[in-house]
Amino acid sequence: MELLFNYVNQHSEEYIHRLREAVALDSVSSDPCKRSRCVDMAHYICNWIERLGGKSIIKHVGKQKFADGQVLDYPPIIFGDFCVDQQRPVVLAYCHYDVQPADIQDGWRFNPFELVEEQGKLYGRGATDDKGPLLDWLWAIEAHRQLGIPLPVNLLLCFEGMEESGSFGLDKVIEEESKGILYHVKYVCITDNYWLTEHRPCLTYGLRGIVYFQVHVRGPQMDLHSGLFGGLVHEPMNDLTHLLGTLTDNQGNILIPKVMDSVAPVTKEEESIYERILFDPEQLRKEAGQVSQLRESDKVKLLMNRWRFPSLSIHGIQGDFSGQGEKTVIPCAVTGKFSIRLVPHQQPQEIAHHVENFLKQQFAQFHSGNELQVEWRGASPWLADYHNSNFTAARLAFKKVYQVEPDLTREGGSIPITNTFQEYLGGEICLIPLGSPDDGAHSQNEKMNKLNYIEGIKVIIAYMNELAKQMS
Amino acid sequence: MELLFNYVNQHSEEYIHRLREAVALDSVSSDPCKRSRCVDMAHYICNWIERLGGKSIIKHVGKQKFADGQVLDYPPIIFGDFCVDQQRPVVLAYCHYDVQPADIQDGWRFNPFELVEEQGKLYGRGATDDKGPLLDWLWAIEAHRQLGIPLPVNLLLCFEGMEESGSFGLDKVIEEESKGILYHVKYVCITDNYWLTEHRPCLTYGLRGIVYFQVHVRGPQMDLHSGLFGGLVHEPMNDLTHLLGTLTDNQGNILIPKVMDSVAPVTKEEESIYERILFDPEQLRKEAGQVSQLRESDKVKLLMNRWRFPSLSIHGIQGDFSGQGEKTVIPCAVTGKFSIRLVPHQQPQEIAHHVENFLKQQFAQFHSGNELQVEWRGASPWLADYHNSNFTAARLAFKKVYQVEPDLTREGGSIPITNTFQEYLGGEICLIPLGSPDDGAHSQNEKMNKLNYIEGIKVIIAYMNELAKQMS
Ligand SMILES: [Zn+2]
Ligand SMILES: [Zn+2]
Ligand SMILES: [Zn+2]
Ligand SMILES: [Zn+2]
Repeated sequence: MELLFNYVNQHSEEYIHRLREAVALDSVSSDPCKRSRCVDMAHYICNWIERLGGKSIIKHVGKQKFADGQVLDYPPIIFGDFCVDQQRPVVLAYCHYDVQPADIQDGWRFNPFELVEEQGKLYGRGATDDKGPLLDWLWAIEAHRQLGIPLPVNLLLCFEGMEESGSFGLDKVIEEESKGILYHVKYVCITDNYWLTEHRPCLTYGLRGIVYFQVHVRGPQMDLHSGLFGGLVHEPMNDLTHLLGTLTDNQGNILIPKVMDSVAPVTKEEESIYERILFDPEQLRKEAGQVSQLRESDKVKLLMNRWRFPSLSIHGIQGDFSGQGEKTVIPCAVTGKFSIRLVPHQQPQEIAHHVENFLKQQFAQFHSGNELQVEWRGASPWLADYHNSNFTAARLAFKKVYQVEPDLTREGGSIPITNTFQEYLGGEICLIPLGSPDDGAHSQNEKMNKLNYIEGIKVIIAYMNELAKQMS
Repeated sequence: MELLFNYVNQHSEEYIHRLREAVALDSVSSDPCKRSRCVDMAHYICNWIERLGGKSIIKHVGKQKFADGQVLDYPPIIFGDFCVDQQRPVVLAYCHYDVQPADIQDGWRFNPFELVEEQGKLYGRGATDDKGPLLDWLWAIEAHRQLGIPLPVNLLLCFEGMEESGSFGLDKVIEEESKGILYHVKYVCITDNYWLTEHRPCLTYGLRGIVYFQVHVRGPQMDLHSGLFGGLVHEPMNDLTHLLGTLTDNQGNILIPKVMDSVAPVTKEEESIYERILFDPEQLRKEAGQVSQLRESDKVKLLMNRWRFPSLSIHGIQGDFSGQGEKTVIPCAVTGKFSIRLVPHQQPQEIAHHVENFLKQQFAQFHSGNELQVEWRGASPWLADYHNSNFTAARLAFKKVYQVEPDLTREGGSIPITNTFQEYLGGEICLIPLGSPDDGAHSQNEKMNKLNYIEGIKVIIAYMNELAKQMS
């Protein structure tokens, strides 16, 4: 591995030069005007895969109709096949080659699609999300090839071009190919997230799920004037605010019966993992829009609230008067939107069932004569066994490159593809974050640290190497 | 009076012809393109006043800046002075000559600005709101003049051209002229509302007031993602829904301490007035957008809820996610909008004080660290003594024309000019509705019944006559 690491150290200029090329291909998946750039980006990667001796496979997923009536092909899903040994399991690496929109008008210090290097930081849209990590995989392969060292594992790349716009088509392709090119996949490695702190690498072994509710309350057939009808009708807004008010206490703790029952109890081992994590609550308070106080001040409690306990947020109400100023209206039909973040062993189906029952019971007591309808959509929480071969390899890889034991972390949100891979491929999934928390993915002045970008190549080299050892 | 009534009966064709002219002057006060039509309408009326031997006075109230940048004169306020005897008190008649917008596209059966007579109904924008009633005053004067009968009272007309757009300038003119042309006004008669039922005339002796609240809860400096921050911060939406939920019980009854204390107790006399009122709850249920049930089924309780008890309506929330679909946002700052309709002896100031105290007390218990700010704006309730000379004259006038005792009614909304006159002129104010409840003011296919229009002239003739008797 020394040879490979040395090679990487000697080629950083080239690595940055090529990232500059990749960023210049402004593959914004949400913008119909830039759809051709997404396609260019896909070809750029496929050519590279072929140059590296891999087999590139392009999967088209159909046509997209935009709001303005344009119909364009979706950006394709790319596979890069570097399998060397039919007898051994396959490692699947996932990244995405599309990026968020960016406009210098929005407060960028540079043209977002021209990579700028400044004080060890590489600024540009997509630098960290997710072109830097994507290139890291290609450079890791390239180093092996240049040095004539065969890859230690069967590597299969899966690069998507619609991640920032709902991942259209990915589920279907993964499902179809689970009997095809993905049949032998045993390990999945996703490199599309961030360290918890700038100062220490981490591995992500858990994500929260979600159930998103839309609660419709319908009364009169049209909006009414509150002077004429205030006091005469059961107002849907009154029903709805009372319903929303029963979901949590005034601290935000969930009051819905049975919802908390299926939350896994905290184990001793877990506590010790949380204790050790490098994390500054004050830093979090600043990131949370400078709130005057957080709901917890203790590091462990705070992280557990974020990662391993459910939370309920009310997002808004549709159909009410939501404009500026005053309007004396009694809205005739309103929809409350709220969601619950799920953790093991909560399942969307079961939680939705409890919530719906509770809402209906409460509502029945109002005798309002209005109509209640509850809609929901959900995604399961995800939790990996961080003792498995995949995590062990990733852990040892970070240790090798950074000389430090990575923290074991989870995330408060969902990363839908994780569930997709889990569902259709099974096996062991690991999230290896390569970016830094201050990278500003999706924001102005997105950047990737030069160090993270270059060392990321070594992490991937070491990861493949360690995973090969785990297999034998 | 027989002579006058006969004269009216003989001239109905002319009355309709002139209403057609007035409707054709599409004086929509909200539309800058139609501002010149408002001015035309004002001149049309002034010329008529002069022809009738009155003195027309035009009051300009300044310039209006429209959203599109145009700057135009406000429609003027017109006075028509028909005072005959310096020794006697003055009667002020109020109407407005501007109308709501109307477009045949919106579902009108005819061109809204071409009066159509069909089965005893006169269709057209402004027919009932408020050009029909306005013309009734002019015809009443004309009948006297044609027959050489002097007006029995000192009559002063006050016709406004901005009523449908916030009555800009009226307060100021009334205040200024309270020491000028309005100095001797003792009786005010407002003809700009509707009977409670088609089948019996009524007089309006009460209006509810209002306090409109905007409750701001501010937390983080920007919206947050519920995956990252759900469970970590005190969410403003959680604070706000809990606050709104404490205002009323799930039936809509007001729970705010002290707010109900100043509501005047129901008297025996009142009850008997309500008992006698002709009114169909089932009809109301239909008008209320076909709600499945009203909060009360009993006629008296229902009307009291509408007119003489306060009600609280939640209108909406600003700053939350109010669009279609799903968004996992934690809104950083939200504003709840609700209002309380006031009745004697509730005063806006005092009620606002109780509400604000209550909200602050509740909020303090949340210890959320967010910021609460309460804004309000109010108008007082209005209640007249229906035993006074003005009401007695109006009552006798209806009896004379319709051979029936009019019902004594109130309204659930506010009519701001009533408070303006009360405040600056004092004296006795009476609302004489001339239109029918199904006239559809502000809606498509607005109409005035030919009968209401023609008999309205007689009502005004009889009213002036009776008022003169009351004075002597
Ligand atoms: Zn990404
Ligand atoms: Zn992204
Ligand atoms: Zn009107
Ligand atoms: Zn009106």
